[in-house]
Amino acid sequence: MNSQTQPERQAVTRDLDEFSVTDAVVARMANARSARTKRVLAALIRHLHEFAREVELTEAEWEYGIDFLTRAGHMSTPERQEVILLSDTLGFSTLVTQMNHRSHNGESEQTVLGPFHRAGNIRYEHGANISEGIDGPPCFVNVTVRAPDGAPIRDATVDVWHSDHEGYYDVAHEEWDGDMRMRGIFTPDATGAVRFRTIVPASYPVPQDGPVGELLRATARHPMRPAHVHFKIDAPGFDPLVTHLFVNGDPYLDSDAVFGVRNALIVDFARHAPGDAPDGSVCETEFFTLDYDFVLRHASPV
Amino acid sequence: MNSQTQPERQAVTRDLDEFSVTDAVVARMANARSARTKRVLAALIRHLHEFAREVELTEAEWEYGIDFLTRAGHMSTPERQEVILLSDTLGFSTLVTQMNHRSHNGESEQTVLGPFHRAGNIRYEHGANISEGIDGPPCFVNVTVRAPDGAPIRDATVDVWHSDHEGYYDVAHEEWDGDMRMRGIFTPDATGAVRFRTIVPASYPVPQDGPVGELLRATARHPMRPAHVHFKIDAPGFDPLVTHLFVNGDPYLDSDAVFGVRNALIVDFARHAPGDAPDGSVCETEFFTLDYDFVLRHASPV
Repeated sequence: MNSQTQPERQAVTRDLDEFSVTDAVVARMANARSARTKRVLAALIRHLHEFAREVELTEAEWEYGIDFLTRAGHMSTPERQEVILLSDTLGFSTLVTQMNHRSHNGESEQTVLGPFHRAGNIRYEHGANISEGIDGPPCFVNVTVRAPDGAPIRDATVDVWHSDHEGYYDVAHEEWDGDMRMRGIFTPDATGAVRFRTIVPASYPVPQDGPVGELLRATARHPMRPAHVHFKIDAPGFDPLVTHLFVNGDPYLDSDAVFGVRNALIVDFARHAPGDAPDGSVCETEFFTLDYDFVLRHASPV
Repeated sequence: MNSQTQPERQAVTRDLDEFSVTDAVVARMANARSARTKRVLAALIRHLHEFAREVELTEAEWEYGIDFLTRAGHMSTPERQEVILLSDTLGFSTLVTQMNHRSHNGESEQTVLGPFHRAGNIRYEHGANISEGIDGPPCFVNVTVRAPDGAPIRDATVDVWHSDHEGYYDVAHEEWDGDMRMRGIFTPDATGAVRFRTIVPASYPVPQDGPVGELLRATARHPMRPAHVHFKIDAPGFDPLVTHLFVNGDPYLDSDAVFGVRNALIVDFARHAPGDAPDGSVCETEFFTLDYDFVLRHASPV
């Protein structure tokens, strides 16, 4: 448009109604610090406003929404992030994850981070048992971290976390003492491999004692997630990989409460009779093995 | 549609991408407790998802948004509601308010509640000074509460709150002791009138020490609201009236940070030389008077 022939548009600033208010808010951001900020906020405002108009949102519903978001914030701690759980259960996290990791040239698929990742995980040596003292069927994990050409990535940081065999994360145990349990950080060996011992995780309900629980009950949705182990793998020169491995056969693979299941991430946790375990020990109970090869994507040149 | 000829639609549940996830989430709410809940949530989910797709929201932007909402919740207390302030500064509150109070047959106009309303306000007798001990030009208020036919409404509850002459609410004073200041509840007299003494409020910045302040700075928006006095009037048989009276001549009437200004609510705060005040006392300084007639709307038959 030619700014010389375009008449200045005088934004209405008083007596705004449910239609004119949208342009008024967007116009107020004309001098936003960055074009990206302006674009994202303008789109957010237009969609939020259109949502309210479309359903003719009542004042009681607005009040409920304000209170809902306030409680979600209040409930969030470094160990339990209710706002992430909200994003997860609305499918918003899966949308953002998949949109940002579209092309797959053999690289491992991503899925949601979830609300239970904790900073400051403990670093372990290969062969460590990260579930020491927690009951459950032993599981010997052997994963590798590789570049698309198959080369091992030795300087990767592999952050692992998962629930116990009852479906509880460490932080959800009633007698939790603040320790890290069923969590660990590893560095691959020369072959790209990471090996550790833990227990088989179980499917579990996402926390229902907060606003997200209210949302699930109001919409008659079950809160279950299929059993899985989380991995977050960072390595210089590669995009971070945030993903899970799901337990094949889990009854909730087709109705994950956070919409995160991907076929390529469903893995057989192979069952073995008591006897020689992969770590050289003898296991007196039956045990499981989990093997998977992660392939990282090269980081885009900046 | 004839359900006999309509083939069952099998919802996709795995390998969801940024498009298919939307229908999957909406489908999951098929058995929602009420049709209204289902409709409101489906619209919210569709608009939120479309927003993210439209701007191709990055994972870093998602993380920022999660953190922003979490901090807004953490910051909210009964005295300071950051999530309401967010709704206000995005024009969302004005949209909802105006959409829910569309027709005006002489009834007073509504505007936003704002983040500073406090429950448990103190009840005063007519003529009370609700700003006792706070400096500022005296203001003698005389408002009436009437039905559309002009009849006084004697059983109304008139809840008033406003800032001081520096622009601070009681709760924002550094040495605030928890008391209610520049706030009061009144019952109209036989003529529908409510009379009290206070001070003239000033224009002021909305709080900028939280996420909303970040939003205003990022979009180069000033944080000012034109000076005003809040009123919330409830009476049996009438719709609640939530409104302000704005000080005529205020420099921010055309750029209210929360988009709440309505011409019908801009009022002359009339200036008077020292001398006889409306309450029968003698005022040794110049003083102001504020007069306004509120007209409530009959409640809709249930």
